[in-house]
Amino acid sequence: MLIQELTRQASLDLLARTHLGRLACAQGTQPYVVPVYFVYDNDYLYSFSTAGQKIEWMRANPLVCVEADEVVSAEQWVSVIVFGRYEELLDTPEYQGTRALAHALLKRHSVWWEPAYAKTILRGAQRSLEPVFYRIQGRQITGHRAVPDQPVTAPDARLSVTDSGKHRWLHSLLRRVQGQRQESRPKRRER
Amino acid sequence: MLIQELTRQASLDLLARTHLGRLACAQGTQPYVVPVYFVYDNDYLYSFSTAGQKIEWMRANPLVCVEADEVVSAEQWVSVIVFGRYEELLDTPEYQGTRALAHALLKRHSVWWEPAYAKTILRGAQRSLEPVFYRIQGRQITGHRAVPDQPVTAPDARLSVTDSGKHRWLHSLLRRVQGQRQESRPKRRER
Repeated sequence: MLIQELTRQASLDLLARTHLGRLACAQGTQPYVVPVYFVYDNDYLYSFSTAGQKIEWMRANPLVCVEADEVVSAEQWVSVIVFGRYEELLDTPEYQGTRALAHALLKRHSVWWEPAYAKTILRGAQRSLEPVFYRIQGRQITGHRAVPDQPVTAPDARLSVTDSGKHRWLHSLLRRVQGQRQESRPKRRER
Repeated sequence: MLIQELTRQASLDLLARTHLGRLACAQGTQPYVVPVYFVYDNDYLYSFSTAGQKIEWMRANPLVCVEADEVVSAEQWVSVIVFGRYEELLDTPEYQGTRALAHALLKRHSVWWEPAYAKTILRGAQRSLEPVFYRIQGRQITGHRAVPDQPVTAPDARLSVTDSGKHRWLHSLLRRVQGQRQESRPKRRER
């Protein structure tokens, strides 16, 4: 597997076509991560939620991180990391324009009432449905792509890190797989 | 959509059958989240990585959070959150047994050398390949499941949160969809 950095544009393209991400926030030294739906627009991720733990934590500490990816397999994936700042879109005149933009974006991509604006049953009690609209200002956006490749080092050297002899079947399997790869792809680039 | 808590066993079952998760760590008040492959065994998530930002951060602050999920759609998903503690499995006699267990688990599920143990090209330079094995002790494991359902409140009341009149098409579409749902599912439980 070969891992490479994405260009900024490729990272933004992934954010634009992906709407499911994982949002990390922190309280004190304890991080917390949850799945969120978002819409990317012009350096901001727009989303909404009902009031709850992540909203409370982000109100107290607006530093967050959002990860979005497209995973085909363990060897083939693209992942983008956004370090950003939480900003609540309050129901006040000041935020009217930004809230209207958020609603339009979230509606256009059919994610505006899901999954956060929902009935939640917690220990038999129904949770508050107060909707909170927010956006994350992306202050640092980076991405990586992994593509299948040959091992970096010779298979024996690589496996010797963890292999103490009882997994020789894996050595020989890998050698065979590598042989097949080389046969099926004769015109490999030089590495 | 209706969101419900999972039982502890259902949460553990998801961790046992899922190997892709998102790991959040924090440096100071800044959280960071990345995709990781792991294997769950007996209250621990086992994983490994090359040395890098997340390892440095977890060495400095071992409080982490891992999220694993199965997302079918915005309305149908299962998500498990693990609050835990990072523990590095050092290449020392003390950790020999635990490292052997980690290797066996990671090999059994074919995730042990992927995706972290790979050649990484960053700004033209190849990154160090020092492998780091670690586990996360799950100190609090909770899960939620979302299933499609009818809106909580009447459609007009729900939409009025964001709808100022120019999206009446959405109101009527939702009413029609709800009508169809009720027709096709006549024996709904009482809510």
